[in-house]
Amino acid sequence: MRKQVKAKDTLAVSTKIVLPNDTNTLDNLFGGSLLSWMDEISAISAQRHCKRVVVTASVNNVSFDKPIHLGDTVTIEAKVSRAFKSSMEVYVDVYVEDQRTGLRTKCNEAMFMFVAVDQMGSPIEIPEVAPETDEELLRYEGAMRRRELSLVLAGKLKPNEADELKRVFED
Amino acid sequence: MRKQVKAKDTLAVSTKIVLPNDTNTLDNLFGGSLLSWMDEISAISAQRHCKRVVVTASVNNVSFDKPIHLGDTVTIEAKVSRAFKSSMEVYVDVYVEDQRTGLRTKCNEAMFMFVAVDQMGSPIEIPEVAPETDEELLRYEGAMRRRELSLVLAGKLKPNEADELKRVFED
Amino acid sequence: MRKQVKAKDTLAVSTKIVLPNDTNTLDNLFGGSLLSWMDEISAISAQRHCKRVVVTASVNNVSFDKPIHLGDTVTIEAKVSRAFKSSMEVYVDVYVEDQRTGLRTKCNEAMFMFVAVDQMGSPIEIPEVAPETDEELLRYEGAMRRRELSLVLAGKLKPNEADELKRVFED
Amino acid sequence: MRKQVKAKDTLAVSTKIVLPNDTNTLDNLFGGSLLSWMDEISAISAQRHCKRVVVTASVNNVSFDKPIHLGDTVTIEAKVSRAFKSSMEVYVDVYVEDQRTGLRTKCNEAMFMFVAVDQMGSPIEIPEVAPETDEELLRYEGAMRRRELSLVLAGKLKPNEADELKRVFED
Amino acid sequence: MRKQVKAKDTLAVSTKIVLPNDTNTLDNLFGGSLLSWMDEISAISAQRHCKRVVVTASVNNVSFDKPIHLGDTVTIEAKVSRAFKSSMEVYVDVYVEDQRTGLRTKCNEAMFMFVAVDQMGSPIEIPEVAPETDEELLRYEGAMRRRELSLVLAGKLKPNEADELKRVFED
Amino acid sequence: MRKQVKAKDTLAVSTKIVLPNDTNTLDNLFGGSLLSWMDEISAISAQRHCKRVVVTASVNNVSFDKPIHLGDTVTIEAKVSRAFKSSMEVYVDVYVEDQRTGLRTKCNEAMFMFVAVDQMGSPIEIPEVAPETDEELLRYEGAMRRRELSLVLAGKLKPNEADELKRVFED
Repeated sequence: MRKQVKAKDTLAVSTKIVLPNDTNTLDNLFGGSLLSWMDEISAISAQRHCKRVVVTASVNNVSFDKPIHLGDTVTIEAKVSRAFKSSMEVYVDVYVEDQRTGLRTKCNEAMFMFVAVDQMGSPIEIPEVAPETDEELLRYEGAMRRRELSLVLAGKLKPNEADELKRVFED
Repeated sequence: MRKQVKAKDTLAVSTKIVLPNDTNTLDNLFGGSLLSWMDEISAISAQRHCKRVVVTASVNNVSFDKPIHLGDTVTIEAKVSRAFKSSMEVYVDVYVEDQRTGLRTKCNEAMFMFVAVDQMGSPIEIPEVAPETDEELLRYEGAMRRRELSLVLAGKLKPNEADELKRVFED
Repeated sequence: MRKQVKAKDTLAVSTKIVLPNDTNTLDNLFGGSLLSWMDEISAISAQRHCKRVVVTASVNNVSFDKPIHLGDTVTIEAKVSRAFKSSMEVYVDVYVEDQRTGLRTKCNEAMFMFVAVDQMGSPIEIPEVAPETDEELLRYEGAMRRRELSLVLAGKLKPNEADELKRVFED
Repeated sequence: MRKQVKAKDTLAVSTKIVLPNDTNTLDNLFGGSLLSWMDEISAISAQRHCKRVVVTASVNNVSFDKPIHLGDTVTIEAKVSRAFKSSMEVYVDVYVEDQRTGLRTKCNEAMFMFVAVDQMGSPIEIPEVAPETDEELLRYEGAMRRRELSLVLAGKLKPNEADELKRVFED
Repeated sequence: MRKQVKAKDTLAVSTKIVLPNDTNTLDNLFGGSLLSWMDEISAISAQRHCKRVVVTASVNNVSFDKPIHLGDTVTIEAKVSRAFKSSMEVYVDVYVEDQRTGLRTKCNEAMFMFVAVDQMGSPIEIPEVAPETDEELLRYEGAMRRRELSLVLAGKLKPNEADELKRVFED
Repeated sequence: MRKQVKAKDTLAVSTKIVLPNDTNTLDNLFGGSLLSWMDEISAISAQRHCKRVVVTASVNNVSFDKPIHLGDTVTIEAKVSRAFKSSMEVYVDVYVEDQRTGLRTKCNEAMFMFVAVDQMGSPIEIPEVAPETDEELLRYEGAMRRRELSLVLAGKLKPNEADELKRVFED
């Protein structure tokens, strides 16, 4: 049986202040800076899961719902939601903190897919994820649909073979 | 009738050398650095289309197919594929150049969605895109399906109302 | 009575990968990069405590015990250990993670002192800290000695008036 | 007899302009940026003394007395104040220059301790420092007290064996 | 006969947004940032010409005619104007784009000289440039005068042996 | 009579370590990084002369004679060589230091021209430079020839009116 790692043991967190070079002329955070921060912290989460070097394989469904401002404190939390043979999906949540009240608001989320590789850059097998909380379970299940969607869009899976996905569009 | 801008007039190009700080311990380019570069140049493309400040709304379907190495010359080309009411999809192609032969290989592509905003950050109406080449037409048409998919995933459109998308899964 | 904030509510965490530009010719992390990272995350901790803009007042007793290497994953944790009238001490712990085993080793610690200021840059009164765990209590008590020491070294307190400190040298 | 190097031959100087990314929302220089600049220039000073690779061992008593503003010209001067067996203390002075009058004001000072290492990272013996001016002598003598204090705080020296330090508190 | 490369095949382009850290207190782009950007993109142009590692040999006649502002979109175009034995001149044009009108204005130009080197850093022979347009021809011819001037200023050519150059001052 | 400033009072110095991101695949310093460092420190020198905001007007005759390596200690010294009505030439010398011997070798030199401007960006009159040493005098005199050359190349002065310059080519 494949080794299992608890989802919570893959949590990686980073907190940052938005600096002038990260913002546009409206003093809002660039999408590109946030994407780069999310990639770094989710790679750390993936490494914690598989204890190997990981490379970014794909990025999906990043939506920027609320603008983030110059000087804001941003917290990025990443956790592995599901592992496949040698790849794993990392689910990223981004929060902004109001300096005066300390209130934390969720601004956006994203899913990054990483592949574990050996020193030659070849993919290697990784442990499974063991989800525990309701949210972890929900994300574990959703990961399969997102993977099918990604394979379909890349032309590597026929739409009518994407079982999980078909169910969504058949209701 | 809404003003039209030719797709080719929105082309924005950036060429860069991959530096040590952009690479992991295998000397391959970080996904995060590439994401940040793609966001900057596609924002410039979107600005050329609408002549306004733009903000990143979402990022979709970024897949990293071939590793890019330390010292490589990377060219990123971005062009608006379709404009909606106040948002537009920018299609990004990434190429790497072999230093000895000069041969250019396509490494990955991505779609960024931007919204044009006024000085208060409110969305404003933008011109249409006029595709001319075959590729521009293909991407123009695909943009509608991608938009539906994005709305479905964000829970803002019911799957059975996504007409373009349903067709894909019904065949 | 002055408002109280629990020590644990001021915890701020940042996890980073050591990049080439952060290292010397032995591929070890520069002290200066680590100092800069510690300042940023401890400023966030201090802001969480007082909900105000804070400025670094002093840095004390930073010792670099174990070298940190290129590519290492570094986690920095900062928590307010004690608040005075308008200043607060933040206690910073730095850990390095072995990529293969996931084992976390403590590499160094430091104490940063911040002052809360209003929009004119003038100091303002801040809440007290409520330590709960044994470690929080120990650091709360040590903070007074460190403050006396700092005032003595700055010539703002006579050595023989530093009650807490004298006790250390009189045993 | 150990080789001697004149204190003035270890002087290293760096002048910089404070850029937007180095400042907080009050447009004042971050402590962390200044700490990082001080570490770089004091490492150069230590290298000039011992002609070897050096690593930061500790940082002590950095106090930020006057705020430094966006656009200010900052000059950092570092000089080795005393050498021990394989470690040396570097004394750092920071000045800000008024652009209109050219007047230079001292803003803060700090002491960095470095260790000289060979290519394996092991400590190696270094030359002595020969102080010449009154200030160099004063700092040379103070260095012994600061070293004792550092050892006491690190639990490597018993307070009642710190001869130089005891004298300060016995008056 | 030496191999020939068409001038247009050496064109390298980079488009950038001017960020806060690139500007002075008048919110104008630093000369130093622009020089650094021009060096990077002209090195890429030189590499495209000779398919080798290149090193900057000299920079000449860079004049900054119009200030470039924070937030401006800057396009830098570099093309090899002439190749000598192992060195080549790259001609750089810099344009700024008005965001509202999309109008492009030329801001400055510069000439960078690069040398092609092997893995030991020794100069190696390179192909010739084949100019085609009127502008390419004009710049090809001017390159000889600029090279003579550079050699005269460096004391490597006697002024009265600089045939092309003498003609300019004799009229 | 116009105010005079001694050349030596405009000296600005910066010492830096060459980091990985500043080097090419041969581990040599990029010309662009050095150009950017030279611009920053020579702007500080020009500001010390005129006590005003300055903008880079032109750069001339930068030649990179000796490669500078990763990890090298680089010292850049800038001094105003001559002031005209509202512009001034800054002469920059670059040295590299051998870590083992401490020996300093001159690697290259460059001349930057700056214009002093008021808060609207308009040029304003500046003090004269008073050269004292032989080298300062030599550079003071050469500055006039370089200025003529620059004006001729920019088409703002007819070659036969460039009195200082003609003398060079008439011998």
